[in-house]
Amino acid sequence: MEFAKRLDNVTGSAIREIFALLAQPGMISFAGGNPSPDSFPSEDVAKIAETIIRQHGSTVLQYGGTPGIGKLKETVLEMVKKRGIDAAPDEVIITSGSTQGIGLAAKTLVNPGDVILTESPTFIGALQNFLTYQADVKGVAMDDEGMIIEDLEEKIIKYNPKFVYTIPTFQNPTGRTMLLKRRKRMIDVCERCGVLILEDDPYCDLRYSGDPVPTIKSLDTTNTVIYLLSFSKIISPGLRVGAAVADKRVIDKYNIAKQGEDLHTANLSQEIVDAYVHSGKLEGHIKTLCDSYRKQRDAMQKKLEAFPQGITYTKPDGGLFIWACLPKGMDAVKLFKQCTDQGVAFVPGTHFFPEGGNMNTMRLNFSMPSIEQIDKGMDILKSVIEKNI
Amino acid sequence: MEFAKRLDNVTGSAIREIFALLAQPGMISFAGGNPSPDSFPSEDVAKIAETIIRQHGSTVLQYGGTPGIGKLKETVLEMVKKRGIDAAPDEVIITSGSTQGIGLAAKTLVNPGDVILTESPTFIGALQNFLTYQADVKGVAMDDEGMIIEDLEEKIIKYNPKFVYTIPTFQNPTGRTMLLKRRKRMIDVCERCGVLILEDDPYCDLRYSGDPVPTIKSLDTTNTVIYLLSFSKIISPGLRVGAAVADKRVIDKYNIAKQGEDLHTANLSQEIVDAYVHSGKLEGHIKTLCDSYRKQRDAMQKKLEAFPQGITYTKPDGGLFIWACLPKGMDAVKLFKQCTDQGVAFVPGTHFFPEGGNMNTMRLNFSMPSIEQIDKGMDILKSVIEKNI
Repeated sequence: MEFAKRLDNVTGSAIREIFALLAQPGMISFAGGNPSPDSFPSEDVAKIAETIIRQHGSTVLQYGGTPGIGKLKETVLEMVKKRGIDAAPDEVIITSGSTQGIGLAAKTLVNPGDVILTESPTFIGALQNFLTYQADVKGVAMDDEGMIIEDLEEKIIKYNPKFVYTIPTFQNPTGRTMLLKRRKRMIDVCERCGVLILEDDPYCDLRYSGDPVPTIKSLDTTNTVIYLLSFSKIISPGLRVGAAVADKRVIDKYNIAKQGEDLHTANLSQEIVDAYVHSGKLEGHIKTLCDSYRKQRDAMQKKLEAFPQGITYTKPDGGLFIWACLPKGMDAVKLFKQCTDQGVAFVPGTHFFPEGGNMNTMRLNFSMPSIEQIDKGMDILKSVIEKNI
Repeated sequence: MEFAKRLDNVTGSAIREIFALLAQPGMISFAGGNPSPDSFPSEDVAKIAETIIRQHGSTVLQYGGTPGIGKLKETVLEMVKKRGIDAAPDEVIITSGSTQGIGLAAKTLVNPGDVILTESPTFIGALQNFLTYQADVKGVAMDDEGMIIEDLEEKIIKYNPKFVYTIPTFQNPTGRTMLLKRRKRMIDVCERCGVLILEDDPYCDLRYSGDPVPTIKSLDTTNTVIYLLSFSKIISPGLRVGAAVADKRVIDKYNIAKQGEDLHTANLSQEIVDAYVHSGKLEGHIKTLCDSYRKQRDAMQKKLEAFPQGITYTKPDGGLFIWACLPKGMDAVKLFKQCTDQGVAFVPGTHFFPEGGNMNTMRLNFSMPSIEQIDKGMDILKSVIEKNI
């Protein structure tokens, strides 16, 4: 049996092994990127679902259009307007989670061998998705203020990339947020060089401290940015609903490419998300989420303060992740095995780098574990690190 | 803005123009492939949805696994067992409709330029999906008994295709069913030549007359067949749930390729489908559907009997479509314009042929229109044809 070449570079087996371990009973997991299982507005969603199907079964259960249901598209346009983005209905498409919005960028724009630039490190799912379309993914250096624009510009000139993928706010995996001045410079560089930006923004509503920073898309006067919005972190990931907002020509291609993937996003998922946004409960729900995740973040930070010298870590104002760097020479993959033996898991940072390496890094998620689990798990992590120093 | 080459051959604009026309008020449409809007079990689905979300919100609204929820996979295995197919849990994946199962075949198996063989004519969605992966799609001749095996064998030898795509039962667009002896010969030829078969079987439960014919997959002793099952025609297409059953190596690749499309099919859609299958109501629901569609098929057939001589048409035992051939020299695209002016739409058959041509053919859907609409619309179609003969 001979498979397509496009899958040759995509194995993801290391990650699958990690997630298989998480199923072990009693494992404290800092490895996931999931919302807290207690966070979902189940009662409200149950009522909404029942009402919608009972009243509109003949349309909700029928085939829908590929671009998404009209009223949810309008809702998305209202939501992005609050993020400084003005767009028309033919500049938006509903996607099956922002994962689909990431994949469609590669599917519609990338020929085999084309370069995509990403932050280094970046979201594993995006990396694997880009590899499926045989993109040549190159990492751009970043620091606590986001992507380093000098390195971005150098690599744009060197590689002539198809687009730059960025998660500017509460980045996965680092939790970092790109400063406004960097966002402005990024737009300047990319507009000047005619390079598109894929701005992935699933975490922006999960802010626990500091002031909001404008989206890159809001600084975009020439439709250089494809903006991805997600409902996964504020309502439910299991419903698989997100959206892309971009130049009409890009959205037209997204529509054609999406047809072959799932024809359209499940109508019921779309209807539930739209109704919940308009239920008047979303703002309160986000506040509850933030109050809870803030405490979890603070608990994890507090534990990190007592970690041995030489370990650095990010101090995110929101999102789901803290990124830790161990002293040079330490290997987080080795550490991972020792930790899981003691019932604690995280993701070794090397997997997030387009070019690998960086063995001394790790991603820690604080949204899934309870505060008790954070306290216990971080103590174990600390003791394992101390044994290895 | 420069897009990927893979989309160059996929425009689908003719089809989109047709479907735009359908939105006109009062249009009688024989063009769609939709279930009847009155056919959905809305009350039951509403209750199921509410109960599931209320009781299992923390898992249903959370991220799920790419292969699909375990119990729905088991349910699929029970269903295909009744179709003569024995498979293990790691030989099945839940897809977002069988559209995704079709696209994933090309995504996982086809390198640009590879040949895929299909019935000629075949499903437009499959054609466009294959073109997205830069497949070279070649049509195999068919008659009322299905694909002509001599032509299939000749083209397998000539083109060394990656796989053969077939809808053997109540085919879209022709309504034809491949005879058992042809199915056996097809398996023989493909096994001997080492060519996979993609068996798309969304209509098999919609049988109104005649005896069931075994699935090709049930004749498959060497895992040559990728079998696609869909819940769209028996429960709801809007939920977007189907499944693929195949060799574990194929399913493993499907899993990797699906991750980048939507991560997983919406959990709620999967849960609803699983609960409805086990509600004890599916058999009765399918019977109701069949009783209704049988009457609609018969009404359309009856009208066709009075059409001018020289027009031939299929007499399907099930499914959603009748295929009509006008006398040579007549052009169904021209006819289409005259018909829509009078409020009746169909799909000109040329769009279903990998190599185009066949201008004198048309696809007529009988599941969407009511019997009144069928009677009125077919009279209009007849008068327009008579004017053009």
